[in-house]
This record gives sequence, structure tokens and C-alpha cells, in this order.
Amino acid sequence: MKKLNFNDIQALPRLERMHLINSLGGIKSANLIGTMDAVGNENLAIFNSVIHLGSNPPMLNFMMRPHTVERHTYENIKDTLFFTVNHVHEDWVDSAHQTSAKYEREESEFDKVGLTAEYRDNFSVPLVKESLVKMVCSFVNDYPIKEQNCHLIVGQIEALYYHEDIQHDDGFLDLTKAKTAGIIGLDGYVKTNSLKRYDYARPNEKPSLK
Amino acid sequence: MKKLNFNDIQALPRLERMHLINSLGGIKSANLIGTMDAVGNENLAIFNSVIHLGSNPPMLNFMMRPHTVERHTYENIKDTLFFTVNHVHEDWVDSAHQTSAKYEREESEFDKVGLTAEYRDNFSVPLVKESLVKMVCSFVNDYPIKEQNCHLIVGQIEALYYHEDIQHDDGFLDLTKAKTAGIIGLDGYVKTNSLKRYDYARPNEKPSLK
Repeated sequence: MKKLNFNDIQALPRLERMHLINSLGGIKSANLIGTMDAVGNENLAIFNSVIHLGSNPPMLNFMMRPHTVERHTYENIKDTLFFTVNHVHEDWVDSAHQTSAKYEREESEFDKVGLTAEYRDNFSVPLVKESLVKMVCSFVNDYPIKEQNCHLIVGQIEALYYHEDIQHDDGFLDLTKAKTAGIIGLDGYVKTNSLKRYDYARPNEKPSLK
Repeated sequence: MKKLNFNDIQALPRLERMHLINSLGGIKSANLIGTMDAVGNENLAIFNSVIHLGSNPPMLNFMMRPHTVERHTYENIKDTLFFTVNHVHEDWVDSAHQTSAKYEREESEFDKVGLTAEYRDNFSVPLVKESLVKMVCSFVNDYPIKEQNCHLIVGQIEALYYHEDIQHDDGFLDLTKAKTAGIIGLDGYVKTNSLKRYDYARPNEKPSLK
């Protein structure tokens, strides 16, 4: 096995270090966050850090680097207090990745990358029509993370839309059926196939399959 | 498409709501966090929220629910200031899932689930020998997240071990080659296959493959 200590990592060329360190967490989620600014400009940007925070009440969080291309998303959420989270699917990862280009505020990434903005139930933030799992969230909190000048954004799920076909009887969504993509590193997109579902684990029992 | 608003979600039975909301973020990473308490008891627990925070210096973060089975991990990190992060691979997701059972502090999950504790380079925290991508981290910060009584833990990567075969020339680790697993919801494990890698996206160019 190759070994790198802290100093070895710090001595790597910048891009090589970025690709390596961004790969280390494992398989990451692929979501498009949709927002609108105060004068009606749509924005759409890809994020790899969305995760549920808890289910009662239903909340999620994601990490933001506000001084990069993501700044429009950050400013819009702080201004309008709403955003959407939309799963990226295998068939259009190219469009999803292209949202990471630095478009101007007046340009809608929906138009630029070939995805369709969709408005539902009187919410003023755009969903991605092509997405099979998507939600409208309200802004709840912003935690500054001083170590890398990041912000952890917490949102509450106000409305949720998904294809019924992918849901199991116990509530679980089989995202492999929806062809929801994952991400490795900065730019590696993956498809997923189900392995197994397990029952709740107990100390003196073998893992049992659902 | 099925639609649920906030009140519909809150009205679901508890377990159904948990399975549903835990599925919504997308594909999650599968990592085992290894720790040791002050008197030498090993601990190993599965987490689905590990993600890089930044690459210079190399840092990662994960979310903790300290009043659940994860409390041993939390207490050990606060006591000893070190932990390991170890990728879970397809071939032994059953062992990884079994670490979520509520073992006693004196019981080592390594022994109970059939994984091997490994100590390298004078660090006193256990790595998982079977893991092909793993790291030793020092504790950096603990951010209380009041919304769901969680804690965001930030760590710095002090040593990193991985199989050279999975690395691309630009630093990227092809985790599909390592057979690193992903997680959906609470208990659904997935394997991954590469789709595409893209170049850095620019506004007036089509997405180009690496």
C-alpha cells in the first residue's frame, strides 16, 4: 500500500492534491440545488455534500464554499430563504456537471445546460423537471466552518416529489431504480447497483437480509 | 409523481418516515470509523456522512448523533483526539453493517464482526486491515448542530494508505476499482460502476470527457 503522511500530502502539486483528497470520503451524492435571486434570475449548481440531517422534522444539510462558483446559490438562499434539491440521474450527468461552469448571474444554468425549470405548488424556487426525486426546502441555519472558510447550510423539507415505483413498503426509496448517480472526487460520476438491505443490527445475531 | 408536504411527512409512522427521509440525500459514503478509549478498548462504527472538507490542509468532516450507538466513537475522539476512517468494500458490507449493533464499551466490534484491527506508524488508533483506502485523522473541531442535536466533527488527515493500482495519474482514486460500497437510506448497500469523468467545466464549451 502507498502511504502518505500529512507533509507528503501538503507537498503534492495543488491539482493532484485536490483530486486525491476529494476522492477520500468515498461515494458522494450528486444533487442539483436550484435557487432564484430577488429579481427572478434562476440558478442551478451541482453539490456533492447533501445528506439528511434527521427525519423528525425532516431536514438535510450540505456544505458550501461561498467564494467559488457556488456563491450565487449561497446569496440566493440567504436572500429568498428557499432552495430545491434535485437528484442527478445517470442519463444526464453531463448536463449536471456543466452547471459547475462559471456562468453570470443573469444566465440561467437550466437554459445553458439543457435542463428544464419546473415550478410546483406556489413555491418560487425552480425544481429540475428531469429529476425523479426532488424537494423544496426552507432555509433553517447557516453554520460557519472556520477551518476551510465553508458554511454548513441546514434546510427543512417543505415538499417532496418522487416516483412511487421506486419506494419499498417500509418507506425506503430504491435510488438504483431511479438511476440516481453518485460522484467520486471532483469529476467522476458513477452508476449504482443494489447489493443488499439488512435488518436492524443486534449484538448477538448475525446480519440478516431484508 | 407522489407528493408529500411537510405535514404529510410528519404524519407518517416513525420508521417509514426514517426510511424515506434517510433515502433523500442520494448515494452516501460507507466508512468505518475506528477509535480507542483511554484504557485501550477498541471501537468501530459505520458512518454514512464522511466527506472531504478541503484539501489544503487535507481535512474531512462527518455528522454525529452522540446519543445513539455512535456515542462511544464520540467520547473516544474527544478523549484521545484521534480516529481512523476506513472505506467499506462490497465483499464485506455485512460485517460493516453489523458494527451498528449496540455492543458494550468493553467489546471490540472488530472481534464481534470479523474484521481485523491494524496499527501503523505508531498511531494508537485502529485501522481496518481489510480496507483498501484508509486514513488516520486528528480531531480539529466539534460544531454542535442544534437542529437535531448533532455534532459536525472536523478532522485533519495525518496519514493516508491506499492501493496504488486504483490511482489515476492526476491524483484521482478510482473507488469503483477498490469496490468501495455506497449506502442508500439506513440499510441499503450498493456497488458502483464508473460512468464518466469530465474535464473542468467552462461556460461556452460542451462537457468534455477526461
